[in-house]
Amino acid sequence: MKPLRADARRNRARLLEVAEAVFAERGTGASTEEIAREAKVGIATVFRHFPTKEALLEAVLVRRLQRLAEEGQRLMAELGPAYALFAFFDLVLDQSPVKNAFAAALADAGVDVRAATSEAGRALREVLAALLDGAQQAGVVRRDLEVPELTAILVGTCRMLEHLDGHPEAAKRARAVVRDGLRARAGSPGGQGRFHS
Amino acid sequence: MKPLRADARRNRARLLEVAEAVFAERGTGASTEEIAREAKVGIATVFRHFPTKEALLEAVLVRRLQRLAEEGQRLMAELGPAYALFAFFDLVLDQSPVKNAFAAALADAGVDVRAATSEAGRALREVLAALLDGAQQAGVVRRDLEVPELTAILVGTCRMLEHLDGHPEAAKRARAVVRDGLRARAGSPGGQGRFHS
Repeated sequence: MKPLRADARRNRARLLEVAEAVFAERGTGASTEEIAREAKVGIATVFRHFPTKEALLEAVLVRRLQRLAEEGQRLMAELGPAYALFAFFDLVLDQSPVKNAFAAALADAGVDVRAATSEAGRALREVLAALLDGAQQAGVVRRDLEVPELTAILVGTCRMLEHLDGHPEAAKRARAVVRDGLRARAGSPGGQGRFHS
Repeated sequence: MKPLRADARRNRARLLEVAEAVFAERGTGASTEEIAREAKVGIATVFRHFPTKEALLEAVLVRRLQRLAEEGQRLMAELGPAYALFAFFDLVLDQSPVKNAFAAALADAGVDVRAATSEAGRALREVLAALLDGAQQAGVVRRDLEVPELTAILVGTCRMLEHLDGHPEAAKRARAVVRDGLRARAGSPGGQGRFHS
């Protein structure tokens, strides 16, 4: 491998890292110039790697999804199926609301999030499917759940915690409600759906 | 009461109704002109009642919160404390995602939602507190819950269903998870918060 290519790869990785931190801190409205300044590189370097700001935003999101998928695999290997899914929920929910609202901010900014992240999204869905299947086999999560609603529950719980930012005790109780709702339990096949059922 | 005032009141109420429908259908980006046209009144009439578009958006949100508070009181009276809270959740969750995302859209548009809706918001919180207290007294909802997280759970569940738009079976299962998590049950004091606890 030629030195230049390794350099370029390191530059790209570093830019993504800085961009993620800047977007998390200042929102997706932060400019490419700000990111270049923060990363101590020229604006031309940024544009060489990411021709548009949308391309940069997409790359940050893809990297985040890839990392989440890797974390999920690591938890599965380290904790085993009875604990890994809930630990993965904790890992996502412990991140800042800004980070978790990133995909929504991108969608608002007109980025086609689904298209941009299709491959990374697929990898993450596969990990989620494995975590869910393991937890169901271990008897700790209700058996009627599938990946789409598990994803939605994770997204919605992030929204709950965003709403409760600065209220840690209330946030704990909200998490407990979701966690207990996910748990398998006797006499509750779930699936009725209506609240007053 | 003079006829003109009654007229003005009716005009205002009609404008709000049309505005709510137009914003729900086309998003909060819809223009005041579109609303005037749809309501079959001149733009001057709209501006007489609502000097700015923000004022109109705020009034739509306030009206919606007031209506929700009234619905909550009605459910309490009609169904009693053991059923009213879950029925209220169903009522909110059955509304369109667009409607439920309205406050968020307003906040994104730069409207200070908290200030604009402080009175209507307070009325709604009081109704929620009564619904929660009734359900806890009746033993159908876990006793450690308080209004802030109940509100957040409602907001977050709306987000789940928005994510699952077009997937009714998955949406039912997501609702069942939240509902079962809210339910009181033996051996579950809740409140631990961590998923892997």
